Amino acid sequence: MVRVRILGVGMGPQHVTPEVAAALRTADYVLAADKGGDDELLALRREILVRHAESVPMVAVRDPARDRSSGLSTVGYVGAVADWHDARAAEYASVLRERGGTAAFLVWGDPSLYDSTIRIVEKIRELGVPVEFDVLPGISAPQVLAARHRIVLHEVGRPVHVTTGRRLQEAVAAGQDNVVSMLNPPPERLDLTGLDDWTVWWGANLGAAGERLVAGTLGEVWPAVVEARAAAKAEAGWVMDLFLVRRPS
Amino acid sequence: MVRVRILGVGMGPQHVTPEVAAALRTADYVLAADKGGDDELLALRREILVRHAESVPMVAVRDPARDRSSGLSTVGYVGAVADWHDARAAEYASVLRERGGTAAFLVWGDPSLYDSTIRIVEKIRELGVPVEFDVLPGISAPQVLAARHRIVLHEVGRPVHVTTGRRLQEAVAAGQDNVVSMLNPPPERLDLTGLDDWTVWWGANLGAAGERLVAGTLGEVWPAVVEARAAAKAEAGWVMDLFLVRRPS
Ligand SMILES: C[S@@+](CC[C@H](N)C(=O)[O-])C[C@H]1O[C@@H](n2cnc3c(N)ncnc32)[C@H](O)[C@@H]1O
Ligand SMILES: C[S@@+](CC[C@H](N)C(=O)[O-])C[C@H]1O[C@@H](n2cnc3c(N)ncnc32)[C@H](O)[C@@H]1O
Repeated sequence: MVRVRILGVGMGPQHVTPEVAAALRTADYVLAADKGGDDELLALRREILVRHAESVPMVAVRDPARDRSSGLSTVGYVGAVADWHDARAAEYASVLRERGGTAAFLVWGDPSLYDSTIRIVEKIRELGVPVEFDVLPGISAPQVLAARHRIVLHEVGRPVHVTTGRRLQEAVAAGQDNVVSMLNPPPERLDLTGLDDWTVWWGANLGAAGERLVAGTLGEVWPAVVEARAAAKAEAGWVMDLFLVRRPS
Repeated sequence: MVRVRILGVGMGPQHVTPEVAAALRTADYVLAADKGGDDELLALRREILVRHAESVPMVAVRDPARDRSSGLSTVGYVGAVADWHDARAAEYASVLRERGGTAAFLVWGDPSLYDSTIRIVEKIRELGVPVEFDVLPGISAPQVLAARHRIVLHEVGRPVHVTTGRRLQEAVAAGQDNVVSMLNPPPERLDLTGLDDWTVWWGANLGAAGERLVAGTLGEVWPAVVEARAAAKAEAGWVMDLFLVRRPS
């Protein structure tokens, strides 16, 4: 039996909870995808280990995605993602089979939000590796966004809707008043039709290098968002952003 | 200038992040509402202090809610909540004026989700106390629910909708497929019409005394939920629960 621990680490060492740090110290090794080149997330995982579980080694597994990029235009996106998950699961499975013991995955943010680690571990099981696993929560990006802007994600007693940039207009059309948008395409490909008088609270690289915040009436501040996003990317070498939009009352 | 730090502490000491622990140690005192009698949340705050910032004293402020309970039937609910927030803000304001320095509020879960601390601190400011404040995130109940059940809160690339038990049917009618329901009334007053073939992942007292989990097809497992909720309450002396429901595909 191989033990796998899926650990949410928030946006960096400052968010690693005592229970995650303790779980990390029970691990024989950390499994991480190595995307090659400058990999900021891999570097951040190393920082987390240095601070919270120095003696646990990291096993970097070559990310199969690199070998498939040429095929991405000829197959559908969902199919490509599934294939890539399968390939990744197969790579991890062979490491787990070989090494055994207790392995940890460090998940950016929280494992319950737009993350595929749980699904990949279930695939590893389907490949016949006898895996037993648990999951511990981590601070997610929407929570850091709200904290930085010192807001609650919804009005008193009202819902909040969390979705992707691609589905933002769907949520607006369905009458949602408070929408968190993640996994956004670059601003020029984001459809913001009809949102000019909504309030936006936007953030990039939260809790990490290049952090930027912008808030205000969307139609007025969006040019500042586009600029801040470029500045975050210039400063950190990468950019991830998200925002909350609220319908005018 | 009085400094106020609003700190998310998750479901207990095991969730207190390094940045929250560090912030706590910058505080001169922690402000907490004392509801009188057996107050589990007050006890838990003491436990957090013992583990993470032993030398910071806790100032328990009498909760004005106790004096108003008799009036709750004659005024509207929203009005009563607002009055109670005002009364609470006034009590805190007088302590902050008197003591000054840096005060911390320990928020259950994350401050961005169904919590009034930010609003109360803004009211304290409106009462003329010169307050400067920041907010740090904490692990929220929906994240612990997902971790315990080892699930992602939504299907690949799809939205998740977070709402209250009172508004659950509204979300279902609006076509939501993945709905997290918090602040639920007791099961007998929860409207679950039409959800018999949905999947439910339910949890009570997560990360705390009396923790219970139930998952399955709602129509089949709901009697087990009602039983588990009563057992959680019997064990801990209090109960808080939430659940995710997913529309059958
Ligand atoms: C694949 S999802 C992972 C989300 C993660 N599991 C969480 O709990 O936040 C990546 C998306 O999360 C958001 N995100 C993650 N980290 C972020 C950060 N530090 N600053 C801004 N947005 C971030 C962005 O919308 C990004 O496109
Ligand atoms: C006033 S809200 C506070 C939510 C909190 N700020 C958070 O981030 O989770 C209280 C509701 O959160 C949920 N909740 C909080 N703690 C919980 C726990 N330990 N177990 C189950 N549900 C919990 C319940 O739905 C409860 O009615």
